Amino acid sequence: MARITIADIARRAGVSTGAVSYALNDRPGVSAATRERILGVAAELGWAPSSAARSLSGARTETVGLVLARDPSTLGFESFYMQFIAGIESELATRSYGLLLQVVPDLDAEMRAYRKWRAARRVDGVVTVDLRLDDPRVAWLSEPDAIPAVVVGDPALAGGVTNVWTDDAAAMRESVRYLATAGHRRIARVSGVQSFGHTHIRDDAFREEIRRLAVHGEIARTDYTADQGATATRGLLTGIERPSAVIYDNDVMALAGLGVARELGVRVPEELSVIAWDDSPLCEATFPRLSALSHDVTRFGAHVARRLFDRIDGTVGGSFLDSTPTLRPRGTTARHAGA
Amino acid sequence: MARITIADIARRAGVSTGAVSYALNDRPGVSAATRERILGVAAELGWAPSSAARSLSGARTETVGLVLARDPSTLGFESFYMQFIAGIESELATRSYGLLLQVVPDLDAEMRAYRKWRAARRVDGVVTVDLRLDDPRVAWLSEPDAIPAVVVGDPALAGGVTNVWTDDAAAMRESVRYLATAGHRRIARVSGVQSFGHTHIRDDAFREEIRRLAVHGEIARTDYTADQGATATRGLLTGIERPSAVIYDNDVMALAGLGVARELGVRVPEELSVIAWDDSPLCEATFPRLSALSHDVTRFGAHVARRLFDRIDGTVGGSFLDSTPTLRPRGTTARHAGA
Repeated sequence: MARITIADIARRAGVSTGAVSYALNDRPGVSAATRERILGVAAELGWAPSSAARSLSGARTETVGLVLARDPSTLGFESFYMQFIAGIESELATRSYGLLLQVVPDLDAEMRAYRKWRAARRVDGVVTVDLRLDDPRVAWLSEPDAIPAVVVGDPALAGGVTNVWTDDAAAMRESVRYLATAGHRRIARVSGVQSFGHTHIRDDAFREEIRRLAVHGEIARTDYTADQGATATRGLLTGIERPSAVIYDNDVMALAGLGVARELGVRVPEELSVIAWDDSPLCEATFPRLSALSHDVTRFGAHVARRLFDRIDGTVGGSFLDSTPTLRPRGTTARHAGA
Repeated sequence: MARITIADIARRAGVSTGAVSYALNDRPGVSAATRERILGVAAELGWAPSSAARSLSGARTETVGLVLARDPSTLGFESFYMQFIAGIESELATRSYGLLLQVVPDLDAEMRAYRKWRAARRVDGVVTVDLRLDDPRVAWLSEPDAIPAVVVGDPALAGGVTNVWTDDAAAMRESVRYLATAGHRRIARVSGVQSFGHTHIRDDAFREEIRRLAVHGEIARTDYTADQGATATRGLLTGIERPSAVIYDNDVMALAGLGVARELGVRVPEELSVIAWDDSPLCEATFPRLSALSHDVTRFGAHVARRLFDRIDGTVGGSFLDSTPTLRPRGTTARHAGA
């Protein structure tokens, strides 16, 4: 059976294809009587709206795209993405939009996905995450004919593309000051993947505040996994000059750090204070409960989606601070005994 | 600017629209010379393939759909879904397919999403999860003109729709037997959301094996969150007849259970053995490391996607056992002291 087209309906109803389009899309431009006749003919011919037809007529795909360029084996261990996606979805639901999600191995594959989506008109806009320094995606999304986009990250990384960000530098400085005020003189940071821009922003803020307060600081590098978090913690706790406080770049590494402290008989918080980035229900499930840098990731995702709809609707973009993560001291931070 | 259609190209090239379709889709049916002439004309007119056009011509959407009917606030705390999605994506990537993901509040909204996707031809097939007893989605997906689907769950719940499953009942029986053999006489199960079919299957297997081995068993109900896992554990550990072993329905509740045991001074594993369902890196990040029921969720997701492609390609469906979760005893299980 051949598909019914707008031309078929126009021919049968004796009107222009433009009039059919107006009537079917419920737009002004045809009289009520003509609209009714057209809808009658459309129903008679068995015409059904399809996203494909709407897309050909220049209407929207009702889809936004998100690519995660991460090794599948490291996804799913951080609660961040699922909460972030749930937040995006909560906003999409109000407009009956869907999220087209792709998990790819690297940035090249992510760029290929964008190009394909643009060529095939698969999405109305994209959300871009995990910004790098000199990110090729930012350059591409800055082009005049680019897909409407919102990048998640610091204005320093966004290259003029509309961005929504959390002030990680301020949160890091606050955490270091908190620990130093509580008497800690040797503070370590267990940081995430080095190719991510926000890792550098947090590194720089950590070093800056360490220097300003004249305390000792060191940074251990990881890939965000519990395994590397545990290894980094073993290195720090068995070193000659052991830190009395560690700030971890995510919740699962902080949890792994607690496990290593227990394994080595280092008491938390008496001998070691621990702070986790990205507060989550995990942080409240440990004993003692993990002190953490908290922000509402689901609300953050919803905010990003609203800014993307603004871009799709043609509103002027900009740079939008969502929030500054708040330090929530719980059971894993204490005054340093030597203070 | 009007969109270039296959008819425009056919007219200009002096061939049939069928010939244009063959040439543009790189299929046999036209000579090399004609193909070249058609591609030349298409390029000259500025024709670009679009998924919309391909979809109108009856070709595929290159998209599969997944709806998660869960409260966004409970998503993201279990690593299951992100790993499952990563597995699906690994298989979609080999065919350049995308995953259309929607998070909705309930099953009614999930059914609306399916109906909309079918009416608007948005997806080639769907993956359906979290089966209920007498699931309305199963009934709908069983209809002759339904979207090709694979449901994730036990054949007893799948109502004849192609399904991929893990043998949870066998894994539960194995765990109870293991604990009983190690001397445990009071065993508890902290179970998940009661409306899910697999919760009933695990409940039944737990009760059956408890009865067969003549040990004492009890079941506490939760919504899968760490918070309710902690509350259930407090109830069990402060009861008059305390269990010496608890099997939790997910990893975050088992972690919360460990926290409560520590809070109450109940030593793990000396006084309490703990087993988590859905082994994850979390289970290896705790100290002692969590004994867990392990299966490869990412591989499971890939398996589901392959079966869905078979359905889309028209292959006959069926019921496919992916695996039986394996008990991995680690640091949180021990012989019962009283044995």
